[in-house]
Order: sequence, then structure tokens, then C-alpha cells
Amino acid sequence: MERLGRYTLKLSGTTGVIGYAAVGGKTEGEGPLAGGFDYIYPDDGMGQSTWEQAESAMLNNALTKAIKKAGKKNEDIDMLFAGDLLDQCSSSSFGSKDLNIPFLGMYGACSTMALSLGTAAVFTDSEGAYTAAAATSSHFCSAEKQFRFPLEYGGQRTPTAQRTATASGAAVIERKRQTGIIIDKVIFGKICDLGITDTNNMGAAMAPAAADTIKNFLSDTNTKPEDYDLILTGDLGKVGTELLYELLQTRENIDISKVHNDCGLMLFDPEKQDVHAGGSGCGCSASVLCSNIFNRMENGELKSVLFFATGALMSPTTALQKLSIPGIAHGIHFICK
Amino acid sequence: MERLGRYTLKLSGTTGVIGYAAVGGKTEGEGPLAGGFDYIYPDDGMGQSTWEQAESAMLNNALTKAIKKAGKKNEDIDMLFAGDLLDQCSSSSFGSKDLNIPFLGMYGACSTMALSLGTAAVFTDSEGAYTAAAATSSHFCSAEKQFRFPLEYGGQRTPTAQRTATASGAAVIERKRQTGIIIDKVIFGKICDLGITDTNNMGAAMAPAAADTIKNFLSDTNTKPEDYDLILTGDLGKVGTELLYELLQTRENIDISKVHNDCGLMLFDPEKQDVHAGGSGCGCSASVLCSNIFNRMENGELKSVLFFATGALMSPTTALQKLSIPGIAHGIHFICK
Repeated sequence: MERLGRYTLKLSGTTGVIGYAAVGGKTEGEGPLAGGFDYIYPDDGMGQSTWEQAESAMLNNALTKAIKKAGKKNEDIDMLFAGDLLDQCSSSSFGSKDLNIPFLGMYGACSTMALSLGTAAVFTDSEGAYTAAAATSSHFCSAEKQFRFPLEYGGQRTPTAQRTATASGAAVIERKRQTGIIIDKVIFGKICDLGITDTNNMGAAMAPAAADTIKNFLSDTNTKPEDYDLILTGDLGKVGTELLYELLQTRENIDISKVHNDCGLMLFDPEKQDVHAGGSGCGCSASVLCSNIFNRMENGELKSVLFFATGALMSPTTALQKLSIPGIAHGIHFICK
Repeated sequence: MERLGRYTLKLSGTTGVIGYAAVGGKTEGEGPLAGGFDYIYPDDGMGQSTWEQAESAMLNNALTKAIKKAGKKNEDIDMLFAGDLLDQCSSSSFGSKDLNIPFLGMYGACSTMALSLGTAAVFTDSEGAYTAAAATSSHFCSAEKQFRFPLEYGGQRTPTAQRTATASGAAVIERKRQTGIIIDKVIFGKICDLGITDTNNMGAAMAPAAADTIKNFLSDTNTKPEDYDLILTGDLGKVGTELLYELLQTRENIDISKVHNDCGLMLFDPEKQDVHAGGSGCGCSASVLCSNIFNRMENGELKSVLFFATGALMSPTTALQKLSIPGIAHGIHFICK
């Protein structure tokens, strides 16, 4: 491992993704990416008695499937890196508490998949772990209840609001891999706060952080957007994506629009599904990465992918106290060998 | 770095603690360790308009002091690993958002200092970072409001309840160190759930995890309790400490009582201060470690210290849903060279 520039870590090129899985809820099952998911629940209760337990069950399911697809057992996984949006990250801890795997809890809001997988990759690349797993989840119903209003209130949503994905994604990585999907570089972002206070406009709160991390990565690696098959952001949605383009174009003279897509714009069909500005939540980028993106890398369609998951670090309490919404973005460069 | 046994990481012996700081509230300032703190606030409002912002201000203060004592500036710190008990870890993100340091959010409840510092050490030991910082905080008033009742309700506390410390601790570590306090080994724990559901008895919920991690560390390293000057647990308090002794003695035939102490029993004076079963909260073990313990290592009194911070991974929601309280414990072996 070596540091490139100020922020980017170049790994040894031998940490590979050996198993991955995505599971989703009913609405995600009606979206354009459903075919690539490993499991779609017939209803969002998932056989559990609360929304929070449903979310935990989803995370457990994605993680268990990823471990199985990697050809591993729980005892083969040296460490699990996981987190989620629920207070005290309870989806992750309750969803993995019976797996008997050393657990490193992480919090990056919707950036959690890049944070967890990137941290896991530093561990596997440095002999801290031989095999490691990363996972995260989100659930529309538990998120609405916690961050906005319980569904029973029938609240109206503004046009800039995004729909929290009911989904979970998990990946298992291992060192000493020569072929397949390789984690080549990792970048951890700084917190950016431009003073946005509208919790129904998360895309705008996260876009400055995405712009900062993307700019730093391209600068550290001395590369251009065209050098990649795909630059994928986590869940900026429609509003945040437009703002990201504008920030990068006007301030940095960087145009990513030709190679960019956003998980929040991919997971749902904006014409047929009523999701306002797009998808969001930890599970959005995690499930898109661990289905569509990794599938397209494995079948040779994508060779070099930059994945920047974005997070908004407010809490319901800080929002009620009228504080601004700090954003963050962490990135991973995947290549196919 | 190499793995010892199933769980323990032996670092290269060159990651050193180069700066540390602890700050505390009024009650902590009346306790037996106050003299080792870097700053005691005259009142728990800390000049802020909310308890949550007071907690963030404390974390910012401890971190800034630790960076300064390390002889560093913010731009010298490659990465910050931090987390706390507040929903969405908002004390850490709001307390560090203006420092311009890449931020890796972590969640380990009261185990956060061992989790953050241990993860940071893996990064510095592996060239992932040259210099890194770890920090955490807790505040009695924000914790009571979030986990139990707002103080204004005047709720009564049970004898097994612990008092959340109003404190923050931060440490700066760097590679290529030959002398001073060295992070020699790190162990990340598994989640242990023995079915405890009483949120006023956190010590009992965390003791099984502490026993598991301590047992695994001693087994991986083939050492005995007497090989260490001090085995320090995070915040088991009186009830949890007694249970830890019993679990280790009866199940594993390990007696740590001669070399053990608990941060929750050290921070306050049980005779003079009304803290029931002792101190708790992320800031408890972090501030004790970053004041009394590191001070005693620096002055030569302690040469080899095992630090196991313990966390209870429930949330107010899971407690209301009558789910059990999963516990976790992460450990660090510090030696003085």
C-alpha cells in the first residue's frame, strides 16, 4: 500500500471481491435493476414484527448470501465492517450479532458502503485480515419513522425529497487475488458543510462532499474522468447530481457527465415509480454496487469503476436544532483483472 | 503486522501515541482523576445552547488539544477515526467538521475509543496513514435525554445504573516511533448477547463481551494476566466488574482481579459522588486512558497495559421493543519503550 498525493491510498492490487449479494424490498423489486438482485422480498415487513427488525433481517440475508457466494463460512471471515442509518447503528449490530464474526461498527450515513468496504480493504491489504466482509442496509419504513414521520401520518413529500431504498448490500473480500474484481485504490473524504439545512434536500447537502472527494482523487492519481468506464456516485439523486456537475464544472473545470451515473437514479424508474428525486439510504448504493455494477464488471462490460458513496451526517436532533447538514463522500476504485 | 491466533493483530512496534488529551465536565472535575485532565469545564453547558452541541464542543476541544500536544497541525493528520453515542454519531461529525481532516466515522458505543484507536493503528502500521487521530465523547445530559429521560423529569436511577461521563478523550498516533507509548497489539471483539434486557444494567450486558475478548487475547498471545501491569476495562462499573471476574474465573479459570481496574470505577469517587454503579459512556474510558493511564505510562509507573473498552449496542428503539442488549469489547495492548 502506498499513499498517492494527499488523500488516496493505492493498494497492492491483490485484494479482490470474492462474493457479493444484494437484497431488496417490494418497490426495489419493481425497479429496473431487480433482475440483478439476489432476493426480492414479497413485502416490506420481511416476516418481522417491526420495521427495524425487518431491516436487520435484510442485512443478515445479504451478508449470509455474500459469504455463501464467496464459498466461505462465517468462521472464515476475520472481520465484519458494517453500519447503517438507524440510531446506534442497530440494524447492523442486531443483523450480525449471531454470526460470531469480529465486528467493527462504522458510521458514514449513506456513504457507509464505501467507508466499510474501503476500510476492510486496507485491513486485507495490510495483513490485518485475510478475509473480510462489508455490509450496510436501509429501509424506507424505518427511515421515514426515524428521520421524518411514521408512515401512518401520511405526510407529503417535497419534489427534492429522495426515497430511502429498502435494500441491503454485502461484499466479501480477500487478499492474494490475481483476477476478478480488484480494489485498487481507496480515498476517505473530509466533511463538507455548505450550510444546507433542508432535510428534504439531501442531494444538495451531499454534492459538495462528492465534488471534493472526486476532485481530490483525480488530482492525486493524475487522471481524467474519461480514464474510467464509469464514475458512480452513491445517492445524490436528480437534484444532487445536477449540483455535482455544476460544482465540478464551474469550480474545477472537470466534466464527469459523460461517464457518470448515480445509484439513486438507477435503482428506480423515474417515469413509472413515484420516487421524487430518486433513491437514497445506505442500502441504495450498496445494493446497486453489489448487483448491477459488480455483475457488469464480472461479465466484462465494465473494467474500471470509480465508486463514490455519499452521506449526510445530520441527525433528527440536529435537524430540529436547525443546524446545517454536513456531507461526506468516500471512494473506491475497482478494476477488473 | 501479523495475526496471532484467531483474533489478535501484532503490529510492527513502531506506531506510537504522540499526543493525547482529556477534557471533562463539572462532576468529573470533582473526581479523583481530575488533576490529570487537560481541561475541566466550569459547567456542563460549555457555553453552547444545547447538550448535543456542548458534547461536540468537548470533542473538538480534546481533539484540538491532542493535536497541539503532538506538535502537529490539522493538516498533518491524515485521518480521523471518531464516533460517539448520539444518534447518527453527531457529536463526532459536528465536533470535527471544520477541521478539514478525512473522517472515518465509527460506532462501538462505549467501546469506541478502543475501536477507533485500534483501527487507526492498523492504518498507521500499514502505510494507510502516517499520522492519525482517534477521539470520542459522551455527555451525561445528552445521553440521559436520548437513552432515558430528559433531566427535567427528575427520574430516579436504580442501584445498577451507571452515570454517563461528561468527558472526551483524543489521541494522535504516528508511525516510525522507537520510544514512548507504543501500540503493540490490537484485538477486535465479537458481539456477545446473553439476553440481558435491563438498560439500567449495562455492566451486566457488556461483561460477557469483555470476558470473551480478554480470554481470546490471552489465548492468542499465550500470556497470563500477571504478565501485564494493568488490565483495564472500559466502563463495566461495579456490577459488570464482579460479573466479569465470575465469568472468567468459573468458565475459563482466569483470575484478572489482581491486575484489573475499570475506568468506570476510577473516574468517580464512589464514597463522595452519587454515581451508583460507576461511570460509563464513550467519554469515560477515552478520558481515563488519555489522562491517568497515558500519564502513568509516560512517567514510567506502567510499562505494559491491556485496555479493553466495552460497548452495549442497543438503541432506545430496540430497548422499547424489548430486544436484548448485545455487548462488544475491543482491546489494545500498549507498551512503553
